[in-house]
Amino acid sequence: MVTKPLRFAEILAVGSELLTPFRSDTNSLYLTARLNELGLDVRGKSVVLDDRATLAAALRGALTRADVVVTTGGLGPTDDDVTREAVADVAGVAFEEDPALLAAIEARFARRGIRMPSINARQAQVPKGAAALENPNGTAPGLWFKIGEQVLVALPGPPRELKPMFEVSVLPRLRDLCAGAVLRRRTLKTTGRSESHVEEIAQPIYTTWLQSDPVISTTILAAPGQVELHLAAQGEDASVLDRALDDAVHKLEAALAPAVFSIDGRTLEEVVGALLLERGFKLSAAESCTAGLLLGALTDVSGSSAWIEGGVVAYANEVKVQALDVPAALIDTHGAVSEPVAQAMADGVRRRLKTDLGVGITGIAGPTGGTEAKPVGTVALAVSGPGDRSVVRMVRLPGDRTTVRRMAVQAALDLIRRVLTDADYN
Amino acid sequence: MVTKPLRFAEILAVGSELLTPFRSDTNSLYLTARLNELGLDVRGKSVVLDDRATLAAALRGALTRADVVVTTGGLGPTDDDVTREAVADVAGVAFEEDPALLAAIEARFARRGIRMPSINARQAQVPKGAAALENPNGTAPGLWFKIGEQVLVALPGPPRELKPMFEVSVLPRLRDLCAGAVLRRRTLKTTGRSESHVEEIAQPIYTTWLQSDPVISTTILAAPGQVELHLAAQGEDASVLDRALDDAVHKLEAALAPAVFSIDGRTLEEVVGALLLERGFKLSAAESCTAGLLLGALTDVSGSSAWIEGGVVAYANEVKVQALDVPAALIDTHGAVSEPVAQAMADGVRRRLKTDLGVGITGIAGPTGGTEAKPVGTVALAVSGPGDRSVVRMVRLPGDRTTVRRMAVQAALDLIRRVLTDADYN
Repeated sequence: MVTKPLRFAEILAVGSELLTPFRSDTNSLYLTARLNELGLDVRGKSVVLDDRATLAAALRGALTRADVVVTTGGLGPTDDDVTREAVADVAGVAFEEDPALLAAIEARFARRGIRMPSINARQAQVPKGAAALENPNGTAPGLWFKIGEQVLVALPGPPRELKPMFEVSVLPRLRDLCAGAVLRRRTLKTTGRSESHVEEIAQPIYTTWLQSDPVISTTILAAPGQVELHLAAQGEDASVLDRALDDAVHKLEAALAPAVFSIDGRTLEEVVGALLLERGFKLSAAESCTAGLLLGALTDVSGSSAWIEGGVVAYANEVKVQALDVPAALIDTHGAVSEPVAQAMADGVRRRLKTDLGVGITGIAGPTGGTEAKPVGTVALAVSGPGDRSVVRMVRLPGDRTTVRRMAVQAALDLIRRVLTDADYN
Repeated sequence: MVTKPLRFAEILAVGSELLTPFRSDTNSLYLTARLNELGLDVRGKSVVLDDRATLAAALRGALTRADVVVTTGGLGPTDDDVTREAVADVAGVAFEEDPALLAAIEARFARRGIRMPSINARQAQVPKGAAALENPNGTAPGLWFKIGEQVLVALPGPPRELKPMFEVSVLPRLRDLCAGAVLRRRTLKTTGRSESHVEEIAQPIYTTWLQSDPVISTTILAAPGQVELHLAAQGEDASVLDRALDDAVHKLEAALAPAVFSIDGRTLEEVVGALLLERGFKLSAAESCTAGLLLGALTDVSGSSAWIEGGVVAYANEVKVQALDVPAALIDTHGAVSEPVAQAMADGVRRRLKTDLGVGITGIAGPTGGTEAKPVGTVALAVSGPGDRSVVRMVRLPGDRTTVRRMAVQAALDLIRRVLTDADYN
């Protein structure tokens, strides 16, 4: 018997906390991207409260519309975790204890030197006919349930449990059932330009692709200090789509360079790390307004100890003087937020920590501390090195305290990138 | 005739772009906050694609569960704007042209010196029985539709159109129908215990409140290094609800102390900052595996310059020796990730930066660098001061690199909090 390939998907996020003003469901964005890659069209998504009957009704509704229904959350050990029960209700089956699963959960607690709380035993209950999905990153196992020609997948809520489980246990199973249509995507990331400036340059280019074969659709997405272009094309032949998309990416890259820092999904800190590694340079940083966030971002990259030595968080002026040898007179003359002080911080940390490059950041994150001449958002950035090169910049960033700090980190990363790549600085 | 006050709400976000991997519906967070203030409990929310029949079915479903259904988006002039049509379908009514509305839309275009495109005439079509809601910030009028005792509200998608329309045209109308009912919330935040352990202690307490008057519902929410209890109660008299919730919070606090760090919404870094400010202490930190994230989190708190001096990011061992006076022999004997080294880092940064407290963090964030004796997730934390006090701890944290680093920050913040508050450390 030849079965109809799966086409439509729905996602249900389970959790009353997702119905408060404080949390939103972000897992569905990741899941949508992965399901799209399999050619599955996500036709709806919902947030459902932690209530067995409500969730069961939502599942029944989704199964009238979609071939694949994915739930996230509600698989924990507590009373308000009702996904297992609702799935069993919808399928009309009872539970069975899975002894291997129980042993795995007990072992997980044992490894951390803790006795398994008795309530966790619930997590080893599996609706009859469903397959339990292993969770190497948590106690909550997932569920894969083929009901007739439809598929119901239940995943845990925490992204660090959900994502590996989807990649390892769900993707291969779904791929077998989704033969045919493919959707391919590309992402082009830029920094240092506003969304409207990127749009002004990119729009005349990408609108022509709506008439091309294959059709390429483009979406622009802005985040603090970053504007991304997302390209997508759907068809039967992956290699045709890939060729068209690569060509499109290179056209946009040529028009937008040097603002484009990545066409392969890498973050700005990953790009900077790869450049440092490639050139064999070590970097240190002296941070005032960002107070550790630049080094925090750079060391988020695995393997960063090969190119990051460390740094100084010089929040107080005295630390700038004592730990970075910034002359006190320089601060008095120019103010702590000034190009000469940023430069002296970069030079100081580079000399003290004996690195090829040193970065200095000093600015006014707000909400207080701004003046007429230097309003909130004023940030001075400097890169000292490699060799006798040196570059300093004053920027004015919009937004609240958190946004100014995030954008200052992006601006510093971009300055390092440009020093390492641009003809202007080399 | 006395009508039953409205209690339950659902929100439907209309728009195929919200079903891509790139956009999420954020309007519902704003709407949830405003609806909650009226005592309306948001029991579900969905994203629906731009399809008339699909949206009509979703509206019918929502109206079986909720007293108030709010839609956002799909009110524009183009073919894929189908909210008006779906609303009319659900109510079973025809359209009427609203001449005043048509004139207002034409006038809006005229003010911009443009003739109204003919497609915009659609926006003056109102389902019979519904009231059009003025949109001073765009062309798309909203809809207020009382169907029996239920209310259906359709709002435009752009936040800058939606929010003023809700405040000016929807809030006063809803307030009249919600007479009385209010919903009040409390949040209790804990750290240093797993979700299951918090549940084991809290569950026997809060389950009794499901039978109490007023009923108090409790949700448990876990994030890396943090478990939160969200309490909510609904009723007529805000002061009765507040009293019951405060009493409930204090019962949970007594049972869970000292893991509870906040009952007023404050983050752990805000709590630590307030304690430092209150006691007039200054703090510095020496960070290896967290590499700036602890100081980054602490300085996210506005006004932190009053109690944060700065610190050293000692990623390389040489920086630990040079910038923090950690004896090289100590690292050789015990390893960089060890209690003595964490202690020496805390002492060193405190002495160098002349602060009342110094914090030391060194650990293995992974994915590489783990050993049998010290696997990935092993982190040593130390607090030096105030005075001659000193405390050091070795913890083993679960999860990937990002999670280990975030949890290490939480664990360090919690250690500082305990040093500043607990009898054990004072």
